[in-house]
Amino acid sequence: MAEPVPLFKTVAVIGLGLIGGSVAAAARASGLAGRVVGFAPGDDGLQALRLGLIDTLAVSAADAASLADLVVVATPVSTMPAVFDEIAPVLPAHAIVTDCGSTKRSIVAAARDRLGAHFARFLPGHPISGSEFSGPGAARADLFTGKLWLFSPVEPAHETLVAPLSQLVTSFGAVVQRVDNALHDELFAEYSHAPHALVFAICQAVADGPNAQRLSELAGAGFKDTTRIGASSPQLWSDILLDNREGVIQAMDRYMQSMQQMRDTLEKNDRAALVGQITRGSAWRASLK
Amino acid sequence: MAEPVPLFKTVAVIGLGLIGGSVAAAARASGLAGRVVGFAPGDDGLQALRLGLIDTLAVSAADAASLADLVVVATPVSTMPAVFDEIAPVLPAHAIVTDCGSTKRSIVAAARDRLGAHFARFLPGHPISGSEFSGPGAARADLFTGKLWLFSPVEPAHETLVAPLSQLVTSFGAVVQRVDNALHDELFAEYSHAPHALVFAICQAVADGPNAQRLSELAGAGFKDTTRIGASSPQLWSDILLDNREGVIQAMDRYMQSMQQMRDTLEKNDRAALVGQITRGSAWRASLK
Repeated sequence: MAEPVPLFKTVAVIGLGLIGGSVAAAARASGLAGRVVGFAPGDDGLQALRLGLIDTLAVSAADAASLADLVVVATPVSTMPAVFDEIAPVLPAHAIVTDCGSTKRSIVAAARDRLGAHFARFLPGHPISGSEFSGPGAARADLFTGKLWLFSPVEPAHETLVAPLSQLVTSFGAVVQRVDNALHDELFAEYSHAPHALVFAICQAVADGPNAQRLSELAGAGFKDTTRIGASSPQLWSDILLDNREGVIQAMDRYMQSMQQMRDTLEKNDRAALVGQITRGSAWRASLK
Repeated sequence: MAEPVPLFKTVAVIGLGLIGGSVAAAARASGLAGRVVGFAPGDDGLQALRLGLIDTLAVSAADAASLADLVVVATPVSTMPAVFDEIAPVLPAHAIVTDCGSTKRSIVAAARDRLGAHFARFLPGHPISGSEFSGPGAARADLFTGKLWLFSPVEPAHETLVAPLSQLVTSFGAVVQRVDNALHDELFAEYSHAPHALVFAICQAVADGPNAQRLSELAGAGFKDTTRIGASSPQLWSDILLDNREGVIQAMDRYMQSMQQMRDTLEKNDRAALVGQITRGSAWRASLK
């Protein structure tokens, strides 16, 4: 049988942590990438090379991007503007660029400012595959299997990029959905960013409280599940929360208002009202697949 | 080989939901119970009998308890005082009584008031094995495997009850720990009850918000884990939260204060402070086994 024709001769992945490392490994496994060149500062790059996540380690983001047909930017959100600055002058004219950031509005704004004419070849993306683990050691070629991968085209020119990128990430096992750029950040504030902030705050209060040791011993499955995302990377998540902070604050305020209402119902010892409040949320949660 | 000598000739389980049904099934499987008689109002009793969780279905709690060597009360917390009233006049003098309630102070007070002299034979217990599922259909003989089972003796007379009950629940695969009665409720307010209330409130706010449908479609592993306990039974949990409401309100206030602090740090755009707040909680959470 003939080798499959690669969709992209050279895929450059910039940032080789959990997400970037997994993109690289999945691209290698897919047969749709002729070769995968990676770059990450510090130990991550070498570790990714040693783990076989990439074919070649570049010496810089610009070096990785300069020969690529596809550039996937998978660095922390706060680093992306600098990456765009660095790669803009060397990007081949035909190269497609995408990102894996957890926020979209500010990344799109940075790409528009910094990629210049090449912004027409930039398709904002977001694989929903984060976890409390991070770094190349946590990367896996099958990380995206069955997970959503969102694309947010913001210009008519972006439409032509959806098909090839969808073909690639579908080969990773991901399920593609399109979502409006601004709505993306509102939805993620509500369902991911604000819950992370609230869980971080619970963990902080427990860690600072008198019973941290006893609670460590008692913690059962319920508490562990509720607070699992609380073990996520402080650096990565400070970036995300600050990047989307207006939406995050709005969602936190709504959640805290609902908490205050439940607390007041408890104080009033009003069983009927409490059952009613719990029932609405419980029914919604139970309806989730 | 000879049959094992049962530790308890007749075990009565009152309440046959997730916990009671699993206690009954585990007792049957253990060989340490000669027979398991159960009682639960409504369909639960018949369903438990049909599922083989119990040997015999009694017509009332008193009927079940009247011939028992061990009575396990596994009803909702709010029903326990009425159960104690009903069984007190018919309990055999030697019978041991225990409960599976998620709170301890009020149950101990009710048992002291209502079991009379038999309070000396009442050992407060709490298997930490709840889940978002409920009812006899969710019961399993192996529910307690590897889980903690807490006992809270409150009188010197209770000490003699610890050994036989520990032998029984250890045969279920549970790990026995002793915990002070008042501390129990404080710890559970912090690590179980208040988190349930907070997650119920988040789910309620989502359910009442404009994006409930979109969030259902997007919800990934992180959000699902965080809110899993939000699908728990409104009736059961209203009981628990109201029963332990002073402690729950105190813990909620502490968590909400920490949330408010994190929100204010976000508003100030103070990255260093945010990283610091997240790091303390994240390190504690990451240290959990």
